[in-house]
Amino acid sequence: MVAFPSNKEKKKQKSRVTITQHTEKTFYILRIYGWAAMGWAIALHGGAGDIQKSLPPERREPREAALRHCLEIGVAALKAHKSPLDVVELVVRELENHPHYNAGRGSVLTTHGTVEMEACIMDGKSKQCGAVSGLKTVVNPISLARLVMEKTPHIYLGFDGAEAFAREQGVETIDSSHFITPENIERLKQAREANRVQIDFTQPLPKVPQETPTSSGDSQIGTVGCVAVDNQGNLAAATSTGGLVNKMVGRIGDTPVVGAGTYANHLCAVSATGKGEAIIRATVARDVAALMEYKGLSLEDAAAHLIHESTSPGTAGLIAVSATGEVTMPFNTTGMFRACATEDGHNEIAICPFY
Amino acid sequence: MVAFPSNKEKKKQKSRVTITQHTEKTFYILRIYGWAAMGWAIALHGGAGDIQKSLPPERREPREAALRHCLEIGVAALKAHKSPLDVVELVVRELENHPHYNAGRGSVLTTHGTVEMEACIMDGKSKQCGAVSGLKTVVNPISLARLVMEKTPHIYLGFDGAEAFAREQGVETIDSSHFITPENIERLKQAREANRVQIDFTQPLPKVPQETPTSSGDSQIGTVGCVAVDNQGNLAAATSTGGLVNKMVGRIGDTPVVGAGTYANHLCAVSATGKGEAIIRATVARDVAALMEYKGLSLEDAAAHLIHESTSPGTAGLIAVSATGEVTMPFNTTGMFRACATEDGHNEIAICPFY
Repeated sequence: MVAFPSNKEKKKQKSRVTITQHTEKTFYILRIYGWAAMGWAIALHGGAGDIQKSLPPERREPREAALRHCLEIGVAALKAHKSPLDVVELVVRELENHPHYNAGRGSVLTTHGTVEMEACIMDGKSKQCGAVSGLKTVVNPISLARLVMEKTPHIYLGFDGAEAFAREQGVETIDSSHFITPENIERLKQAREANRVQIDFTQPLPKVPQETPTSSGDSQIGTVGCVAVDNQGNLAAATSTGGLVNKMVGRIGDTPVVGAGTYANHLCAVSATGKGEAIIRATVARDVAALMEYKGLSLEDAAAHLIHESTSPGTAGLIAVSATGEVTMPFNTTGMFRACATEDGHNEIAICPFY
Repeated sequence: MVAFPSNKEKKKQKSRVTITQHTEKTFYILRIYGWAAMGWAIALHGGAGDIQKSLPPERREPREAALRHCLEIGVAALKAHKSPLDVVELVVRELENHPHYNAGRGSVLTTHGTVEMEACIMDGKSKQCGAVSGLKTVVNPISLARLVMEKTPHIYLGFDGAEAFAREQGVETIDSSHFITPENIERLKQAREANRVQIDFTQPLPKVPQETPTSSGDSQIGTVGCVAVDNQGNLAAATSTGGLVNKMVGRIGDTPVVGAGTYANHLCAVSATGKGEAIIRATVARDVAALMEYKGLSLEDAAAHLIHESTSPGTAGLIAVSATGEVTMPFNTTGMFRACATEDGHNEIAICPFY
C-alpha cells in the first residue's frame, strides 16, 4: 500500500523537487555527499497525448485507478526487494491486462481490424534486453520480451516467429478477440472515416477526410511503461503497446526499438510514449542516458532536453529514473497518464501538467 | 570511374591520414580554416568478422571486385551530384544483388532454411528514415525501406505487412529460392550440426555441439552498408542484411534498428556490422553521432570509442563519414570488407587491418 503524503511529507517533497531542479554542479555535490543517493524509485505511464482537461470522469477515473493500483503493486514489490527487472515486468503486465490502456487487452487496431502488439524490457546494469513485435495472441507481450532476452541468443523476435516462440515457451495465449474492445472498434471506424492513422485514445476524431493517411495532428494515449531503480542503483525499463489506431499491418513503432521507446543502462532507465516515428528519429530513450553520460547533465535536464528541444510539441513524453533515485516525467503533449513514488516519500498520480 | 592513387596521390593520402589522426584540437583548427571541410566522401562495407589472412583467393577476389565495382558506382553518382540518399541506396542495391554478400541475393538462412532480409535507410539532414524486416521475396530490401520512408506515415514495416506493401508499390519481387545460394545451404547445415546460431560467412565452423544455440565465438561477415556525404555536407546511411546463419525465424537484428545498425544526422552517417545483439545494446550508430554532438569528439575518435570501448573485441565494425568529408572504418574483428573514397583523392579497398 502506498502511503500518500502527509503535510510533513509534502514539505519534504517540495524540497526534493527544488533540489533536483538545481544546477548540475549542486546536484553532483549532493550526490557526492549522499543526499540524493540510493533510494528506490518507480515511475509508470499510460501514454502521453492530447488529453483535454474536460476528459469525462468515466474515461479519467478507471485510468487513474489503474495507475494507482499498478503503482501500489510496484512499490510493494520494490519494498519486498524484488529486482527492478521483476518490478517493471510485473507492473507492465498489470497495465497490459487493463482494457483502458493501449497495450495487451485494449490494444488499438490495425487498418485490417487486427491487433499487433509490441513490447521491450531492458536491464540497466547488464544491458540485457528483449523485444517483441507483431503479437496477435500473447496475453502479456512484456513477459514474452523477457523470455526472448533470457531464453534465446537474440534480443528481438517479431510476428510469426515471436508467436511460435510464445507457444514453444508455453506462455499464456488467447484468441485475438480477447484484446479487441468495443471502444477500439469504434476508434478504428472513426479513423477509417477520417482516413487517418491516429494515435488517439480518448476522444472522437474530427472528420476531416484526407487523401493519404497521415499521423499528424492526433493525440496519443495508451502505450504503457514502467521504470524502476532499487536502493542499490539497479535499473530497469519496460514498455508495451498496441501501436497506432488504423496503422498499417506490419508497422513497428518506437516501443520495441532499444534506444527509442525503451532503454536502461547504469545511469538511468527510460520509457517513452507518443508519436513513435518522432521518438525513433530522436532516439529519445538512449539520448536521455547519452546526455547524462557524455554531457554530464542531470536526469531531469537530460529528459527535459529531449522533450523540449529534440522532439516537436505534441509528440512525446517519457518517464525516467536515475541510479540515485531521481524521477522525472516530462511531456510536450497536453497530458500524460503517469504516476511515481520514491523511497523518501514522494508520490504522484497525474494526467495534465499540474494535476 | 574511380581514379586509383598515383604516387603523388598516395603522398596526399598519407598526409590526410596523419592529419585525421591528430588531436581533436588540431582537427578543429583545420576545420575552422576549411582544410578538412566540405568534400564529398563515401564508404561501404561488406561485413566485419573473423576473416583470416589465409582467406583463399576464390573467396576474397569476388568480394574485392564487388567492393571496387560498388565504390566506382558510388563515386560516379556523387560526382554526378546525385543526393547522398540516392547514392547509398544505389550502392546498397548493387551489394544486395551480389551473391557473395549476406544481403538480398546471398542472404544467409534461418533455422527453417528460409530467408528473412532486413534493411534501413536514413537521411541526415531531415532525419527521415525507413526500415524493413522479415522480407522473403523483395529483390532489393533497401529500396523498399526507402519507400516506407517516403510513401507511408510510418518508419518501419515488418514481415507480411512489409511484403504486402512491396506488392502494393509494385517493387520487384521474386520467388524466395532466388536468394538462396548453395553456399548458404551448406553454411546452415554446418551451423545446425554444431547447434549454433552463427554469423560466419567465409569459413566452415568448428563442429563443437552445444546444448543450446549461442551466437558466441563466430565470425560475422556479409551485412552490407554504405554511407555518403556530398560537398554541401548532406549525409545519408544505408544498411542491408540477411541476418545470422541459423537464426530463429522472426529474429530482428541491428540493421533496421535506427540508432543501432544505421543512423544519420547533420554531423555524420554511420552503418554498423557485426553481432547484431552487441550493436543494439551499445546503440552503436547513434552513439558515434552522440559523442560528436554531446562530447565534441571528432568522427574518428567517436567511432574508435564505440569499437574499442563500448563493444567487445570480435563483435563490431562500422563505416562513417562526417559532414566535413572525413571517413573512418574501424573494427574490432580480425577484418572487415570495406572501401572508401574522398574528393581529395583518398581511395581504399581493404579486408584485414593493413591491406
